[in-house]
Amino acid sequence: MRESDLLAHIYARSADLGSLYPRVLVGPGDDCAVLDAGGGPPLLLKVDQVVAGRHFEPFPRTPMDLIGRKSIARAVSDVAAMGGTPMVALAAAAIPDALFGRADHLFDAMHRWARHWGCPLIGGDISSTPGPLTIAVTIVGTPHHARGPVLRSGARPGDLVCVTGRLGGAVDAATSGGRHLTFEPRLAEARALCDTLGGRLHALMDLSDGLGIDASRMADASRCRITIDAAAIPRAPGVSGWREAAGAGEDYELLFTLDPDCTPPPACPGTSTTITVIGRVLEPAPGPACAILDAGTEHDGSSLGWDHARPGPTP
Amino acid sequence: MRESDLLAHIYARSADLGSLYPRVLVGPGDDCAVLDAGGGPPLLLKVDQVVAGRHFEPFPRTPMDLIGRKSIARAVSDVAAMGGTPMVALAAAAIPDALFGRADHLFDAMHRWARHWGCPLIGGDISSTPGPLTIAVTIVGTPHHARGPVLRSGARPGDLVCVTGRLGGAVDAATSGGRHLTFEPRLAEARALCDTLGGRLHALMDLSDGLGIDASRMADASRCRITIDAAAIPRAPGVSGWREAAGAGEDYELLFTLDPDCTPPPACPGTSTTITVIGRVLEPAPGPACAILDAGTEHDGSSLGWDHARPGPTP
Repeated sequence: MRESDLLAHIYARSADLGSLYPRVLVGPGDDCAVLDAGGGPPLLLKVDQVVAGRHFEPFPRTPMDLIGRKSIARAVSDVAAMGGTPMVALAAAAIPDALFGRADHLFDAMHRWARHWGCPLIGGDISSTPGPLTIAVTIVGTPHHARGPVLRSGARPGDLVCVTGRLGGAVDAATSGGRHLTFEPRLAEARALCDTLGGRLHALMDLSDGLGIDASRMADASRCRITIDAAAIPRAPGVSGWREAAGAGEDYELLFTLDPDCTPPPACPGTSTTITVIGRVLEPAPGPACAILDAGTEHDGSSLGWDHARPGPTP
Repeated sequence: MRESDLLAHIYARSADLGSLYPRVLVGPGDDCAVLDAGGGPPLLLKVDQVVAGRHFEPFPRTPMDLIGRKSIARAVSDVAAMGGTPMVALAAAAIPDALFGRADHLFDAMHRWARHWGCPLIGGDISSTPGPLTIAVTIVGTPHHARGPVLRSGARPGDLVCVTGRLGGAVDAATSGGRHLTFEPRLAEARALCDTLGGRLHALMDLSDGLGIDASRMADASRCRITIDAAAIPRAPGVSGWREAAGAGEDYELLFTLDPDCTPPPACPGTSTTITVIGRVLEPAPGPACAILDAGTEHDGSSLGWDHARPGPTP
């Protein structure tokens, strides 16, 4: 079973959520769930996890500070990906016996970074494990006060497709270090887009698995197609080709679509983070949900990026 | 470092939460955190995790249905332990490659049990892992509408100390099966106690690590002492002595204290779950936070139960 098959199974099982549980405004499938908690603004809810050897090289090759940082930053990025603001965080850590003596350093790092992004740790759970260090972080946030939650399903035919920053090269091939450990979640950028564009910001998500596969997910969620100009994809320094930029993953930049009447500014207002128009949203049609056009040849975006497939024997 | 040392470190670091973040009504240290989410009733927030080989025997010795059940039930029990009602759940699962083909069965079990207890799964994260199956479940709940959240820190000198049900024997020594996989979180019982006792229900928590250590935690949180009559501890069938009843853990029964004017009913109203008075809350004094008295000899409760200590080398 591929991850995408499992997710399809989960989404199908969750299709009745809205009708059975009217407080659930958005269920599985977007960057965050959205909950009407009764009386106040809706809440954004997200859980994300990191596993040593999968999301970072085990300690001490990755310092505790960067392990804690990434565990928080990934979930914060998902709140940014709804245009929201993090409010509080909870963490569950399964800690190998050999690292238990360092667990206070890990907590201190998570504590500091959670507060850095405005979402103090207010609860957690600790377990020992015979396996790798595994950290699950849950964040509760609030959507933009005026725009509300910006879903990945809001793209409309004709929209401009944009990304922030420059893609690719987030994981250093030689050291496994790099930007994936130190990225800054695009909270300010997403907020600025909501502030200035309001309802003309149609769809938003963050890029974690790679532009190709993530844009395919946005197109599927929006029941339309996305076409991307390979030459327009902004590349991080040292990234030689569009395939690496579209497929390497771990960028944690924003992918968003805008009403075609918009003229996107060169950078997110109030920040130095660039905005690049890379494509268009099209009407639904047979073929790939996201097509990347390179010198007249169409490539299926869904083949570029990480599907966490782990085909294995079924015991 | 013992788990208790790490928790003390975390609580000390979190002491400024309430002053810096006034929305955080209760931080780390109780069964759930309590958050003022703005406008509506406060929210209960809890994350808990299970690790194969630690909290259950690995699949297939434990069926997927019971793995999923326990992963949800443990977090639900913490909501019951505040007198609350679960509303929604999120789950992060790190799945060994060899089990990925069964991941849909695991999801289905979690999906079914989460809805059984009123908190549908609305979000999650999936990762592969080279280690054991690890599942972290976050639950958002609401406190009792009239009583509000019942903290473990509310015990007062003079209070009666009570437990629901019968303790010990939750993990079958021969098969590692048993009640710890099939327990029913005491949601209805806790709600009934809040309904009928209101403000005379002073303190409440669930018993996960063992009566001795958990009562010690309640006494510490309440800045008082608890004394328990060993002979009064209700024992599950097959549990021969009070030590096993007080130290075996995984009971998921309720421990609570009542105003001394109360006459506790023999069972939680509307249920068949028994209530037993097992001790008293005392003024603070030197000595163990919880003392269990057996035939005139005082035993330190904190030595009975699970401290998830995993002393190991510090690399």
